[in-house]
Amino acid sequence: MSTQSPTLNVSILSEDANALAEEIANAWPTPNTLHICQAVTTSEQINPDEVEVLLAAPNLAAKVIDQCSGLKWCQSTWAGNAPLLNLDKSDYILTGVKGVFGKLMREYVFAYLLQYARNIPAFAHNQNHQPPIWEESPRAPLTGKTLGILGAGSIAQALIPVAKSFEMKVIGLTRSGQAIEGFDNVYAATDLLKFTQKVDHVVNLMPDTPATTGVLDQAFFEALKPHSVFINAGRGSAIVDDALLNALDSGQLRAAVLDVFTQEPLPEQHPFWSHPKVVITAHTAAVSSPEDVAGVFVTNATRYMANEPLLYQFDFNKGY
Amino acid sequence: MSTQSPTLNVSILSEDANALAEEIANAWPTPNTLHICQAVTTSEQINPDEVEVLLAAPNLAAKVIDQCSGLKWCQSTWAGNAPLLNLDKSDYILTGVKGVFGKLMREYVFAYLLQYARNIPAFAHNQNHQPPIWEESPRAPLTGKTLGILGAGSIAQALIPVAKSFEMKVIGLTRSGQAIEGFDNVYAATDLLKFTQKVDHVVNLMPDTPATTGVLDQAFFEALKPHSVFINAGRGSAIVDDALLNALDSGQLRAAVLDVFTQEPLPEQHPFWSHPKVVITAHTAAVSSPEDVAGVFVTNATRYMANEPLLYQFDFNKGY
Repeated sequence: MSTQSPTLNVSILSEDANALAEEIANAWPTPNTLHICQAVTTSEQINPDEVEVLLAAPNLAAKVIDQCSGLKWCQSTWAGNAPLLNLDKSDYILTGVKGVFGKLMREYVFAYLLQYARNIPAFAHNQNHQPPIWEESPRAPLTGKTLGILGAGSIAQALIPVAKSFEMKVIGLTRSGQAIEGFDNVYAATDLLKFTQKVDHVVNLMPDTPATTGVLDQAFFEALKPHSVFINAGRGSAIVDDALLNALDSGQLRAAVLDVFTQEPLPEQHPFWSHPKVVITAHTAAVSSPEDVAGVFVTNATRYMANEPLLYQFDFNKGY
Repeated sequence: MSTQSPTLNVSILSEDANALAEEIANAWPTPNTLHICQAVTTSEQINPDEVEVLLAAPNLAAKVIDQCSGLKWCQSTWAGNAPLLNLDKSDYILTGVKGVFGKLMREYVFAYLLQYARNIPAFAHNQNHQPPIWEESPRAPLTGKTLGILGAGSIAQALIPVAKSFEMKVIGLTRSGQAIEGFDNVYAATDLLKFTQKVDHVVNLMPDTPATTGVLDQAFFEALKPHSVFINAGRGSAIVDDALLNALDSGQLRAAVLDVFTQEPLPEQHPFWSHPKVVITAHTAAVSSPEDVAGVFVTNATRYMANEPLLYQFDFNKGY
């Protein structure tokens, strides 16, 4: 008697479809049990009738997922899944990518915090000057300062060991305000201003939910310190753009580093682009590699085939 | 009967003489036992006959120390004491500043490593472009990479927890090559090229001794990788300038970040200034604050008055 291993039929919908297919094939643990039935880069190319297990970018999947009547499980290639949140369809398992963004985000956040701490632009200016200027420019060490993190998920957690290695304090803000290991203190969302008054620098990593829309408003930015650096790597909708611009213009914070925006790409005429105290990156703070995403997919696929619960499941009711 | 506490007669010679005097007075533990007899900013202003205990910048002290026949102890305001090394006078205790530079150096080193890892200049270029460019620029995460540190003193040690928090490996190079806690591996100075072949990025923190002069030569730079960032925050004399320039021009490393130079200030006409792959800072990687230096001085002065051995003593025979 022979036991026939079942085969998993996988559809891939992503700009990186080919790289993902290759990485998954390389990482697949059991021979002859994987069938990649389609790997396409646009939603127009996909055959919805074939979709049973889908690995997809949420923005692309959102255009076709209603037609995928046989869909059982969708592994998103993103951490957040906002594009799939407000659709009628929710009769499938939706999982995200976690554990790979933290290591990228910590490098992004500290690259910019340290750029300001060490005043890199001033030294670059001195070097480019004719004649060059040999001069000590003012610096503002991170040691002893307090880093505030809005949100306390796995990405936020990844910042903590780095902050501690620079001997910073770390405080967090979450819905409940319950204590979380690693944070020196956690504030409830209702205590946002108390939290803000304690921080030297602050990073927004809150997920995109209705409860977080526009919460970083005038009162928030006015509570920051003249030396504060504000980093938004959560969602653009969390901040009130005009409130941030006003606060920057009146010196209520030192700088804003923005990776996410209400509208992306950020429109050419948006005043953020040319503001001297704003740094813009193109939603690239934590872009996972195909290898990273394939790793999460293969782990979850192995669980799926063994009828075990999947990791990083999305709860359609909670919205995250 | 009353016991009269002895008074310590202190001379201060430093560009920061006034700030140092103030910080020392603030931190001094026992009333009426400190007499700052002179606090001057140039070697011409000091009266050598009054000098018994001297707190001084080594470059200024070197000009007058031969005349200070009553000198018993000199607390340098620097970590290194090269200017005092080649003088005839060595009949006094010379101590340096330690424990305060590591926290500054770790911010310097990772500010620049992360600037390259996250390709900050490319995003800045995109933002300044007309019209602005919304684009993912290539990045090169530190996670999983190997940081090589030339030297393994207290400043080098301070880098290790930060490197580990980014999940980097850390290897060191020392005279003996004996294992040191925190380093994944330590190579002997005679194995410099073996060490170099293992590193992704490398930081020189070797002290300024005859044994380290010119050791970072053509063979060293040729053994680096095209993605390597080389940081020199030890002493300028460790590197052969032309060898570094040639290696940069032929793509044998990505960039050099230089804080120290054979001649300082770096002469205007030196090719480092305008090289597109060279970043120059003005010997400011780890500039201690007057408060930091005063703290070390007061700790050592307390020991001096109690006839206890001083911390961070310089060995004139070893040269460090």
